[in-house]
Amino acid sequence: MNKKFKWIGFDADDTLWENETFFRETEYLFAKMLSEFCDKETAMQELYKTELKNLKDYGFGIKGFMLSMVETAIQLSAGKVATSNITRMIEMGKEMLNKPVTFIDGSKEVVKSLSKKGYKLIVVTKGDLLDQERKLAKADIDKYFHHIEIMSDKQEANYKKVLNHLNIEAKDFLMIGNSLKSDILPILNIGGSAVYIPFHTTWIHEQVENNTKLENFWELKEMAELENVLGL
Amino acid sequence: MNKKFKWIGFDADDTLWENETFFRETEYLFAKMLSEFCDKETAMQELYKTELKNLKDYGFGIKGFMLSMVETAIQLSAGKVATSNITRMIEMGKEMLNKPVTFIDGSKEVVKSLSKKGYKLIVVTKGDLLDQERKLAKADIDKYFHHIEIMSDKQEANYKKVLNHLNIEAKDFLMIGNSLKSDILPILNIGGSAVYIPFHTTWIHEQVENNTKLENFWELKEMAELENVLGL
Repeated sequence: MNKKFKWIGFDADDTLWENETFFRETEYLFAKMLSEFCDKETAMQELYKTELKNLKDYGFGIKGFMLSMVETAIQLSAGKVATSNITRMIEMGKEMLNKPVTFIDGSKEVVKSLSKKGYKLIVVTKGDLLDQERKLAKADIDKYFHHIEIMSDKQEANYKKVLNHLNIEAKDFLMIGNSLKSDILPILNIGGSAVYIPFHTTWIHEQVENNTKLENFWELKEMAELENVLGL
Repeated sequence: MNKKFKWIGFDADDTLWENETFFRETEYLFAKMLSEFCDKETAMQELYKTELKNLKDYGFGIKGFMLSMVETAIQLSAGKVATSNITRMIEMGKEMLNKPVTFIDGSKEVVKSLSKKGYKLIVVTKGDLLDQERKLAKADIDKYFHHIEIMSDKQEANYKKVLNHLNIEAKDFLMIGNSLKSDILPILNIGGSAVYIPFHTTWIHEQVENNTKLENFWELKEMAELENVLGL
């Protein structure tokens, strides 16, 4: 059968498996710990501001998030936060690092089935190298992927580099992800196609407005609908 | 001219540029901050223990080091460390992340000259993705390298994967680095050759004893001596 796309790229966090939910849960506990100093809303807003400020130094990932929690707690409490609470923040981060992988509805089955059908699959994810490698190993799906690319950021230039490196023509490439900003728009801009599958929770930093009618673009409710896009 | 090695791999931290020195400086300041709770020797030993314990969660790199400083300080002071000192630890880490790149004697010139002579050069480094990418960009030497591989650890299996991926035969590959454990022994074990250039400071975790006479191995004082190994 003639394939519409030879290569399919998958984002990992919140596309293959859950991730953002754990950040939201931890932020909530963080805000609760600071309740004697400020209301929950303020705590979460200030944490987000600290994270944004630190992004250029720390990049994406759990370790940077942990450091930003500690920094925000000291600042919001004017230095009065108990060190036992700082210890607890570090523990919460370690718990996040050790969470089991929870696949999002049907993602593992879709990956397996597309691999069997002869599609060349790659993972394109951003964030912390060790953390992402660990999740891929825990998830035990490495074997279905031709290549795994972990990048520090998902800009057009980063995607171009990967496609070049693997000799993929943009027209043969379909990217699947939950972030318009990181997974969809950069791919469409370099001539690829993209499938957007929103997750129920999106980090504010990943939220963008899109009011244009996009080409080579599909929005799906769940990954099982991918077969329609691929004409299977 | 017939080349003894077609491919040359360079470790980055403490081979191309200084790195370990900054950790030692920061550890010293860390120990000084805790002087009311314990002597310097104890502070540094405990920090190292915490780092080792956290290695499986954090991997290598500055952010993990920062989190281990905070954890150790709280533990060693029985929770009494001032939050202003915790803030200072985070600042010291950020300063480390923003250090300019300081090349080790002649390394940039050697890289440039080997690239001109037609050797295929790669960087093989471990640690934090964003941090390493940033240093390579700051150092402005990306252009001399055919490929840059940033891995979470430098075991035989990691090296095998890179060589396979780039279609390099081990016999054609020479690796240059400052760590017997990470840069030299795994390469010799998979049939490659290696040049060891010790740096004046080595992290305890990277120290190994070697009393065997090694084959396909050279120890040099500085990178400029590489021409002898290559027969140039």
